[in-house]
Amino acid sequence: MRILGIDPGLQTTGFGVIDADGPRLAYVASGTIKTTGSQGAEIGDLPGRLKILFEGIREVHARYQPHCAAVEIVFVNVNPQSTLLLGQARGAALTALVSCDLPVSEYTALQMKKAIVGHGHAKKEQIQLMVQRLLNLPGEPGKDAADALGIAIMHAHARVSFEAMSKSATLQRKQHAQFRGGRTY
Amino acid sequence: MRILGIDPGLQTTGFGVIDADGPRLAYVASGTIKTTGSQGAEIGDLPGRLKILFEGIREVHARYQPHCAAVEIVFVNVNPQSTLLLGQARGAALTALVSCDLPVSEYTALQMKKAIVGHGHAKKEQIQLMVQRLLNLPGEPGKDAADALGIAIMHAHARVSFEAMSKSATLQRKQHAQFRGGRTY
Repeated sequence: MRILGIDPGLQTTGFGVIDADGPRLAYVASGTIKTTGSQGAEIGDLPGRLKILFEGIREVHARYQPHCAAVEIVFVNVNPQSTLLLGQARGAALTALVSCDLPVSEYTALQMKKAIVGHGHAKKEQIQLMVQRLLNLPGEPGKDAADALGIAIMHAHARVSFEAMSKSATLQRKQHAQFRGGRTY
Repeated sequence: MRILGIDPGLQTTGFGVIDADGPRLAYVASGTIKTTGSQGAEIGDLPGRLKILFEGIREVHARYQPHCAAVEIVFVNVNPQSTLLLGQARGAALTALVSCDLPVSEYTALQMKKAIVGHGHAKKEQIQLMVQRLLNLPGEPGKDAADALGIAIMHAHARVSFEAMSKSATLQRKQHAQFRGGRTY
C-alpha cells in the first residue's frame, strides 16, 4: 500500500510518499510545492497559485502512483483572511487528490504528533527527527515534507490499528456466534 | 465573449452563463451545483463534496464552452470553521476553472451589487429582479443563480469599461505623439 501524505498551505504544500506493508514502512519520496518565487514573492494571482498547487499534486500522483492519500486537517488562524486563504489552498489540494480518484483520509496535526512523537505538543524539529528515524532517512527531511511524511505514517498506523480491530471484531463475532449456536442445543 | 459567473459555496454553488457583445448581454444558462441531499443532508465527507463541486463546474464548462470566468470573492464568516469550509469550497471552484484553462477574474459582492442594482446594500431579491430585467428573463432566477449571473454581468461591464479606458488611453498617446511630432518641425 503506497500512501501520499499532504500538508497543505498556500505558500508551501508538503508532500511525502511512503510504502506501508503492515507495520513495515519504507520511504519513497518527499518534497514541497511552492507558489512563491525565489525571493518569497507571490507568483501571480490566487487562481494561478491554486493551479500550481493542483497541477503539482497531480504530478506527484502521476510519478509515484499512490493508492490512497492522507491530508492534514488545518486549523483556523487568528487572522480570518489567512484562514480563508489556507482554506482555498486546502480545497485545491483535496480537489487534486479526488480528481485522481484517490481515497482521502484526514487527520489533525494533534493526531499525527501523538502517533509520531508520542504527545500532541511536539515541535517541528521533533517531528523531523522522529520521521527521519521511523523511515531510516540519511538526513532530516524539511519541515513541510516531514509533516507530510508524518501524516502518511499516521495513516499507515491507523490502517494497521483498524485492521487489527476488524480482525478482533470478526473473532468476537465468531466466538459469539458459536456461543449462541451452543445455546440452541 | 461567453462569460461563466460563479457564486461559490460548500452546500450550494451558483453558476450563470451569459454572452456579452460589447454592452449587449444575452442569457445562456444558469443553475446550482448542490452537495446536499434532498433533505438538506450532507452527501459524504468533505473530499467527496469538493469532488461533486469540481466535477459539476467542469461539466458546466464542457457544456457551455465559456471563454472566461468571474468568481465572487467570499467574505470571512463570524464562525471561523465556516470560513474554512467556505474557503475550501471556493478553492475547489477556482481549481475547476483554472484546470479548464479559463482566465479567472474576481469581484466582491459589493462591486457586483453596485454594478447591478446601483448600490452596495442591495438585498438578494433586488439582485434577482435586476438580473431578470437586464437579461430579459421570463421569470426571476433563483438566489444563487442570480448572484452568479450578476457576477458574470459585472465582468461584462468591467470589460466594456476597461476597453473604453484602453481606447481612450491609446487616443491620448496618439495625440501626444502627434503633438511631440509637431514640435520637431
